[in-house]
Amino acid sequence: MVSVTIWNEYIQERAEDDVDAVYPDGIHAPIRDALAAAGHEVRVATYAEPDHGLTPDVLDETEVLVYWEHRAHDHVDDAVVDRICERVYDGMGFIPLHSAHFSKPFKRLMGTPCSLDYRESAERERLWTVDTGHPIADGLDESFVLPETEMYSEPFAVPEPDRLVFVSWFEGGEVFRSGCCYRRGNGRIFYFRPGHETYPVYEEPVVHEVLDNAVRWAAPRTDAPVARDNSAVEPAE
Amino acid sequence: MVSVTIWNEYIQERAEDDVDAVYPDGIHAPIRDALAAAGHEVRVATYAEPDHGLTPDVLDETEVLVYWEHRAHDHVDDAVVDRICERVYDGMGFIPLHSAHFSKPFKRLMGTPCSLDYRESAERERLWTVDTGHPIADGLDESFVLPETEMYSEPFAVPEPDRLVFVSWFEGGEVFRSGCCYRRGNGRIFYFRPGHETYPVYEEPVVHEVLDNAVRWAAPRTDAPVARDNSAVEPAE
Amino acid sequence: MVSVTIWNEYIQERAEDDVDAVYPDGIHAPIRDALAAAGHEVRVATYAEPDHGLTPDVLDETEVLVYWEHRAHDHVDDAVVDRICERVYDGMGFIPLHSAHFSKPFKRLMGTPCSLDYRESAERERLWTVDTGHPIADGLDESFVLPETEMYSEPFAVPEPDRLVFVSWFEGGEVFRSGCCYRRGNGRIFYFRPGHETYPVYEEPVVHEVLDNAVRWAAPRTDAPVARDNSAVEPAE
Amino acid sequence: MVSVTIWNEYIQERAEDDVDAVYPDGIHAPIRDALAAAGHEVRVATYAEPDHGLTPDVLDETEVLVYWEHRAHDHVDDAVVDRICERVYDGMGFIPLHSAHFSKPFKRLMGTPCSLDYRESAERERLWTVDTGHPIADGLDESFVLPETEMYSEPFAVPEPDRLVFVSWFEGGEVFRSGCCYRRGNGRIFYFRPGHETYPVYEEPVVHEVLDNAVRWAAPRTDAPVARDNSAVEPAE
Repeated sequence: MVSVTIWNEYIQERAEDDVDAVYPDGIHAPIRDALAAAGHEVRVATYAEPDHGLTPDVLDETEVLVYWEHRAHDHVDDAVVDRICERVYDGMGFIPLHSAHFSKPFKRLMGTPCSLDYRESAERERLWTVDTGHPIADGLDESFVLPETEMYSEPFAVPEPDRLVFVSWFEGGEVFRSGCCYRRGNGRIFYFRPGHETYPVYEEPVVHEVLDNAVRWAAPRTDAPVARDNSAVEPAE
Repeated sequence: MVSVTIWNEYIQERAEDDVDAVYPDGIHAPIRDALAAAGHEVRVATYAEPDHGLTPDVLDETEVLVYWEHRAHDHVDDAVVDRICERVYDGMGFIPLHSAHFSKPFKRLMGTPCSLDYRESAERERLWTVDTGHPIADGLDESFVLPETEMYSEPFAVPEPDRLVFVSWFEGGEVFRSGCCYRRGNGRIFYFRPGHETYPVYEEPVVHEVLDNAVRWAAPRTDAPVARDNSAVEPAE
Repeated sequence: MVSVTIWNEYIQERAEDDVDAVYPDGIHAPIRDALAAAGHEVRVATYAEPDHGLTPDVLDETEVLVYWEHRAHDHVDDAVVDRICERVYDGMGFIPLHSAHFSKPFKRLMGTPCSLDYRESAERERLWTVDTGHPIADGLDESFVLPETEMYSEPFAVPEPDRLVFVSWFEGGEVFRSGCCYRRGNGRIFYFRPGHETYPVYEEPVVHEVLDNAVRWAAPRTDAPVARDNSAVEPAE
Repeated sequence: MVSVTIWNEYIQERAEDDVDAVYPDGIHAPIRDALAAAGHEVRVATYAEPDHGLTPDVLDETEVLVYWEHRAHDHVDDAVVDRICERVYDGMGFIPLHSAHFSKPFKRLMGTPCSLDYRESAERERLWTVDTGHPIADGLDESFVLPETEMYSEPFAVPEPDRLVFVSWFEGGEVFRSGCCYRRGNGRIFYFRPGHETYPVYEEPVVHEVLDNAVRWAAPRTDAPVARDNSAVEPAE
């Protein structure tokens, strides 16, 4: 059982009819329900709340942060970005979804542009597990299909992942590194590509399985502190 | 200018009409011509020669070994496999092509089964460069097409590559890590997936570009010896 | 609770007085006792048994194999080496200790010479955790000391580790990558440097902590099969 | 021949007598002379100049940026940090030295705190090459000594390096990952630990050798653009 916060900008669901039609209770709702059903303790934070929902208290209780954003990348306050990164360095897991590849916290943690090409055309995506031994792939078939997705294409401007778990095939001819593991400080990061605001990707049981596995994998493993400052020390010898 | 040996089992071209029709002078011939035209010094070694063509003298003169085999995996003498691995540890580059994924030297250097799934159906393959800054991708487009290939599918049972350069998309729905870089000892290894004995993949100019880049990248960079045995030493301090 | 087999050649303890003096019940004894006290199910296998103690039945019940050997590298039958590697590909954890760096199974899984320099002079070793977030470092101090060890020095002829957990400092002026994580197939491998047959390294509580963490980390995470052979498949699309 | 800019804050040499005594012409001077003698085209930029010396014109002409800073981390304008990172993504090499581990550009590119422990006590450092096949180690001995250095100790809060080239041993009992290679976008980054403002580390011939090798290694290899923005695309198929 992991203590999870789903952080959703929660903007398009309330402003756009076609998004509301697919996710009437917010994009976070099916993710919350799935993770709760898997036994996790789940809370939801949204941008409309103070500190965009991520007060120090909320983050202190969060073992893994699952993140959706799409429209409001530049809206997020740098102090909140700093706070998230600090928590990641201390061991909080971080799971940015889909368009959160271009979010401030993910770009900050990667140190790269994190750009890609895309196409919104409701096309079929097949995800292949290339790292069969990885805990995030536990229980999955060798490959699985999402019938209608937005395409994301390489080159994806991220650092080479520590472990590459999934690679996507798209109907239109593209591929993408769709499940990428990183460590920053003590925190485990899993970027998971699938998702869209007008395709019901987050209703897919296989996506729920991946997210459950990812939350378990990303949970903190150690209480070791990660220093922020340089310290003068006496000889160890 | 790199000193290259193309090592070809050279069996099917002489025994099977449909292979002879595509590669009448051997699969090594178009590779040899392309690398020679790119300025390299190229020799060819085949299994019919003593030591399967790889005598100590040949290997001593070889900076990069490009390798095709398909039918005779188990035919290769272990002493020759040892000899190749020793040279790789000392810095020789090694570029196994396509079905050489299941060759003795590649499996020995990887330490894994190196198995995969395949389909011979002359289907379209598009290779995407996922590591745009890699020397092996120099001068290439973001993606390029091979019109008729044999499909290879994940999971590919190799260690996580040091650098992943290309990922393939196949018409039939599969993906593959098609350009994988490794180091073993001082030697650089580049596994390149495309190729087949009855599709003219090795006549493609873009494949020649990749192989030229790969040969330059895999050439030895250092004369530092890699020890074979454990040695007792005095304190360094 | 993990099902552990400690595989010990168990030769020097019975043949050499100075080894018997330090490990009268075998080098496996303090490791067995420590892992059992940590809650694991532990059995011991030795070279004197049929199949050097690693029959298919024993390996089938083994989740993690901890391995000591020193004198009898070349004595181990290749069929047993094959059997171990197959089990690692399927997910069995493998923890070679100290001089097992030169064992057949470790060299086979690494694909490199695995050589190093050494010095037997009972000198102080300090291990530094360079990957503070790694589960194998859980609960440890930033660095810890072993008062009398055999020195191992770089360059250590292994592939670049997937994760480097510990780096050793030696009194005599050397360093060593003393905790190296690898994956081969689904199996997790942790090479741990400390240990010696005439220094009581395996009596140290901190070494017991590391081994307990390592056994937990290396336990199988998935039932996904890793194929051994290439298979022809129909289009996935 | 590589076009190199040495970027030096150039503050302590002019303000502190003990620094001036060791580097009367600036810390950049012996580095500049050594790289020029090695055949590179070298210019120097300092913080006193407009844009801290790194105008767009200067960066456009720079293939590799070598960087010393110590006192003025927070002084550097974010717009200049952005400009450096953009150039790195496009392929410029970046070689931060010693205390530049805590500089804005390095921290931005790493995405981590980059903190460490230190001790200024003129103690002996021995660097071991752990990656003997790496171009940056070309021509070096297995290990080499710097007689008087400032100690830096693990844990060093950086992402796991793509390649670890050097590990340092310190007289006082510590170790450090002293030569770390990364890629960000198309740019190659080499963090090199040795150096200090009051010990003549940059007068050491072996340090000149490393810097020459590093400059050659970090030089741009490709003109492939790295996108900054997400683009909508038509199907590739």
